[in-house]
Amino acid sequence: MSSNSIVDLARASRLASVAMQSVTDDQKNEALLRIKQVLAERRDEIFKANEEDKKIAEEQVNAGKLSASLFKRLDICNGDKFDTILSGVSDIANLPDPTKKVTYAKKLDEGLELYRITVPVGVLLTIFEARPEVVVNISSLALKSGNAVILKGGKEATKTNAVLAKVIQDALAGLPETNGIPKEAVQIVETREDISALLDLDRYVDMVVPRGSNSLVKHIQNNTRIPVLGHADGICAVYVDKEADINKACRIAVDSKTNYPAACNSAETLLVHEDLLQGTDKFTTVATALLNANVTLKAEENVRSFLLSTVASELHDKIVPAVPEDFDTEFLDHIIAVKSVKDVNEAVAHINEHGSKHTDAIVTENEATADIFTTRVDDAGSYWNASTRFADGFRYGFGAEVGVSTNKTHARGPVGLEGLVIYKYKIRGNGHVAGEFGSGKKQFLHETIAPENYNI
Amino acid sequence: MSSNSIVDLARASRLASVAMQSVTDDQKNEALLRIKQVLAERRDEIFKANEEDKKIAEEQVNAGKLSASLFKRLDICNGDKFDTILSGVSDIANLPDPTKKVTYAKKLDEGLELYRITVPVGVLLTIFEARPEVVVNISSLALKSGNAVILKGGKEATKTNAVLAKVIQDALAGLPETNGIPKEAVQIVETREDISALLDLDRYVDMVVPRGSNSLVKHIQNNTRIPVLGHADGICAVYVDKEADINKACRIAVDSKTNYPAACNSAETLLVHEDLLQGTDKFTTVATALLNANVTLKAEENVRSFLLSTVASELHDKIVPAVPEDFDTEFLDHIIAVKSVKDVNEAVAHINEHGSKHTDAIVTENEATADIFTTRVDDAGSYWNASTRFADGFRYGFGAEVGVSTNKTHARGPVGLEGLVIYKYKIRGNGHVAGEFGSGKKQFLHETIAPENYNI
Repeated sequence: MSSNSIVDLARASRLASVAMQSVTDDQKNEALLRIKQVLAERRDEIFKANEEDKKIAEEQVNAGKLSASLFKRLDICNGDKFDTILSGVSDIANLPDPTKKVTYAKKLDEGLELYRITVPVGVLLTIFEARPEVVVNISSLALKSGNAVILKGGKEATKTNAVLAKVIQDALAGLPETNGIPKEAVQIVETREDISALLDLDRYVDMVVPRGSNSLVKHIQNNTRIPVLGHADGICAVYVDKEADINKACRIAVDSKTNYPAACNSAETLLVHEDLLQGTDKFTTVATALLNANVTLKAEENVRSFLLSTVASELHDKIVPAVPEDFDTEFLDHIIAVKSVKDVNEAVAHINEHGSKHTDAIVTENEATADIFTTRVDDAGSYWNASTRFADGFRYGFGAEVGVSTNKTHARGPVGLEGLVIYKYKIRGNGHVAGEFGSGKKQFLHETIAPENYNI
Repeated sequence: MSSNSIVDLARASRLASVAMQSVTDDQKNEALLRIKQVLAERRDEIFKANEEDKKIAEEQVNAGKLSASLFKRLDICNGDKFDTILSGVSDIANLPDPTKKVTYAKKLDEGLELYRITVPVGVLLTIFEARPEVVVNISSLALKSGNAVILKGGKEATKTNAVLAKVIQDALAGLPETNGIPKEAVQIVETREDISALLDLDRYVDMVVPRGSNSLVKHIQNNTRIPVLGHADGICAVYVDKEADINKACRIAVDSKTNYPAACNSAETLLVHEDLLQGTDKFTTVATALLNANVTLKAEENVRSFLLSTVASELHDKIVPAVPEDFDTEFLDHIIAVKSVKDVNEAVAHINEHGSKHTDAIVTENEATADIFTTRVDDAGSYWNASTRFADGFRYGFGAEVGVSTNKTHARGPVGLEGLVIYKYKIRGNGHVAGEFGSGKKQFLHETIAPENYNI
């Protein structure tokens, strides 16, 4: 797309987002259910495009240019995948509207009322990789939160993405005139050049929501001034304190590492209080549980020599030396870096230096120690006696997950629809002017307005 | 400072911020009141440094290298200025603690509880210009919200800033050991090179809070990946609708423009419904009120010719032609750009294209028109029949103002202490693991925990 066309496209998204500021929750839900219906009606057309993408991808897999797992993610025809995508749309429609909530209301003077109200962020740019269902999922999340969205998918799914986006736009275009959501609320671009251009257009794009690999997210974070909602690394740690219940430590370490090693909320680092490196009934038990779960322990020398002297010898080949970079690595595999610390403060210091501000857990029976850990570790999720794997929007009860953010501003941790809204202040006056307030003049009332008296 | 020293300084701020995650509101207030006391005790030393800065600055004013208004902002010895600075510290101590508020609490399973809690953002970097009182003000705001802060002031106030920072650090160092706030919670740097280095250290610095000119803020926004809380331009508009009460329009236009023209919330653009450019009793009245308040109207040709034919001739020399750039200019003076629009939608479109997402006002008696305007204008403050000058943290009732943000994420509009906090999720479990939940297994409860049952 030419750079002029990209600016036009971005401006069209901006205008669509302005129109969407006025739509009601009923109108948004009408649009979502219409999208679901048209997707179902045009299943054959969508499947045909997906088969074409898969055919090309299969050749690449055979030529060793594409991984089998990526190929699998591309497929939306298999099993009940497409039905799951469709029901995801109505699930999002059924969530509460995150906009139009009054979060601050003050009477400033007689006839002068101030309201803070949640509103859509505006225009989202989503960049994702293999999974074409992101087109449907993120469009639904964007529409439900009143945002316009520009989508860019992976090149392996070009045809599927294009058809899905077209179907959604057609569904929006077919809405009754009373609906008010323009079809430009969902737009799609196809090339890297388009993305480069869009990442510069901070005057039209309000937030970037990347969904994909660390390298994708890092590339975007490094190449735009637009706020990026997401995370690159997920280097989560489990710290087993000297006062840990060892049974809990085994359960939590194994689940955090092995429940789904490719997930960002899986543990990559295991910290152990040095007192547990004595006798065979403590850390040895935890290490053995991990080894039995097929986990390789990359351990610092003191830990490794302790384990080699206490763990059953048939497990020794999975106890290997750690190198310093292991503590900054997201393995996404059955591997965990292991290190001893002298106390909870050293555990906190290690995590704050090497972690990715995602999710970390302490296993201890001592509440004061747990409190130091969960208060001082600088992360989105600080857990006491629970697996890091709970860090997830659905598990948290949000009903939908936009992504997981390791940012320190706006939205942190698993992000639901609330992460796609901001607020604005509205004032309702009667000709009020600031010059009449001040020392020796009128004073502000600053009286909280009760919800039943909202005048907005 | 060498680049190694800057990294050490930033890391020291990070460590201070970790320690501050644990401090109580009483401890923060103890620190603030101690700072106030030591500032008062060392007034002579502070005034001496300020006199030295002023002496050099005076020479620069005489040489025409520094403006008189900048010189005036530098002075903290004059009148009750210093006492105002001191009382500002205790005012901030008296505000409610913005941290440790539970904003989401769910029982996920028996013995598995999730809490979302407000926490300090971490490390703030504040860059400001002439006013040395920002050292005291922003340090107080940072401490009250549990953040560490690195300060960089203008070179004209180098000595004053250094002494103020030293006094604050000494006050922190003199706190009883039970307090827990390290003196590194407030640090100061002096050179541009230090700032360049810090703007790259996104691993230690969480947020930049610039306080100063547009060019300062723009420079920072363009040179860091760290989130910037603030605003560059403040291009606010007043739209006088065809159904405006003309008396209110006069009051609001004059107050928005002239109450304090140098402020970011002053109006720079006046939009008028074209129907009011007929007869002499409507827009002529508004224009005359502005002209009588010594405001120059830079008007598009149709507006100008209308005014020249209806406004008293002794005021004609203040009615001058507008050029297109006038509608993108923050005059900060008794000047306003004037343009006619055909309806509220054109007013909205103009503001969304040319405004700075700060604050805009509509004057109309028609509620539906007002609603279109306040809903569709993309700004932090959308006012109906009120002056743009109300956009201010104190006027909003926040008790303190960190700044005004035109961002679309995190914090928008006048920002109080809430803008300096984020949240984290804490989970309290009993050895819970994710692998035991799911289809055919345990289900999440997602029961809201009532505040009286919080276990945190």
